[in-house]
Amino acid sequence: MTLALDDAAQDLLFRAARTANSFTDEPVDDEQIRAVYDLVKYAPTAFNQQPLRVVLVRSAEARERLVRHMSEGNQAKTAAAPLVAVLAADHEFTTELPTQFPAFPQAKDVFFAERAVRERSAAFNATLQVGYFILGVRAAGLAAGPMTGFDADGVAKEFFADGDHSVLAVVNIGKPGPDAFRPRGPRLAYDEVVTTV
Amino acid sequence: MTLALDDAAQDLLFRAARTANSFTDEPVDDEQIRAVYDLVKYAPTAFNQQPLRVVLVRSAEARERLVRHMSEGNQAKTAAAPLVAVLAADHEFTTELPTQFPAFPQAKDVFFAERAVRERSAAFNATLQVGYFILGVRAAGLAAGPMTGFDADGVAKEFFADGDHSVLAVVNIGKPGPDAFRPRGPRLAYDEVVTTV
Repeated sequence: MTLALDDAAQDLLFRAARTANSFTDEPVDDEQIRAVYDLVKYAPTAFNQQPLRVVLVRSAEARERLVRHMSEGNQAKTAAAPLVAVLAADHEFTTELPTQFPAFPQAKDVFFAERAVRERSAAFNATLQVGYFILGVRAAGLAAGPMTGFDADGVAKEFFADGDHSVLAVVNIGKPGPDAFRPRGPRLAYDEVVTTV
Repeated sequence: MTLALDDAAQDLLFRAARTANSFTDEPVDDEQIRAVYDLVKYAPTAFNQQPLRVVLVRSAEARERLVRHMSEGNQAKTAAAPLVAVLAADHEFTTELPTQFPAFPQAKDVFFAERAVRERSAAFNATLQVGYFILGVRAAGLAAGPMTGFDADGVAKEFFADGDHSVLAVVNIGKPGPDAFRPRGPRLAYDEVVTTV
């Protein structure tokens, strides 16, 4: 069985790509992130809700505020990465929903009137978008270093003052440096993951 | 700014790919799903935990049991799709963790001793993998129809008797049929999603 996706793309996104733990000094500019976003924005979310929000942490002051909330093992690499992105779910994605899902503009009130439902939906769909974003960084020829080891409430308070966002991941981005990669871990076999009924 | 990923791959995975709401009769065999899995398994999860579990719903009897739990608007297309996959998070991913994350075999007990922590981590990381899986289906030249409109507890009881899984998505898979696609929805602009600090 041959995939429709060409081998070079399979390697770039999945097989050769690796989580990077160190980076070169080469900067990552906003145009690169714009190109990533303009690709991955097309991947699907429920009701086209697109709850992902991204904060690019560029200034030294902001980087310091972020690093403080990272777990100890993630602090040095987060401080040193050329670019760091904070990825969050916007619980109030419903503000944009009538324009983003014009087929059923009432969805906002019919399905998402309750805050708990909005939070759950935003978290799930923004997490899908975190996955798309990681692959998008790789599509730009960059390496991603996604992390979940941080104080999520602390990061949310620093970067989303409105209290309406939950922080899902922090992603270091750049060109991989020397010794950037740990040995590739094993993967579960198909039969351990997939069953047929 | 040109991405490293070639244009054909960008189209196949993101720009031309669309959520399908109907399919042709062409079957989707296990070898195709194996090829999808053998590609997307490489995408990253925290501690390489790989909590995603997939049930391919093939038999008429199982398909009927699934359709019963789908929301009304999803029933006909789920009944008719060449293949339907139930995607779930395994809360007991820690059973495999010592072999899958050999760098720190104690992670199971140090980080994941509490059930609530395991559940949260499994749901987040398996949701990343749902995103990878959807793109993997597209990489195989197939269309995906991911759905979240179903009774998740009902589906879990039907297909995961152990009570240790949460069902995240149900995905119809096949070649798109006539009128498979709704009009492409809009997307949020870069500046509505990404900010810099």
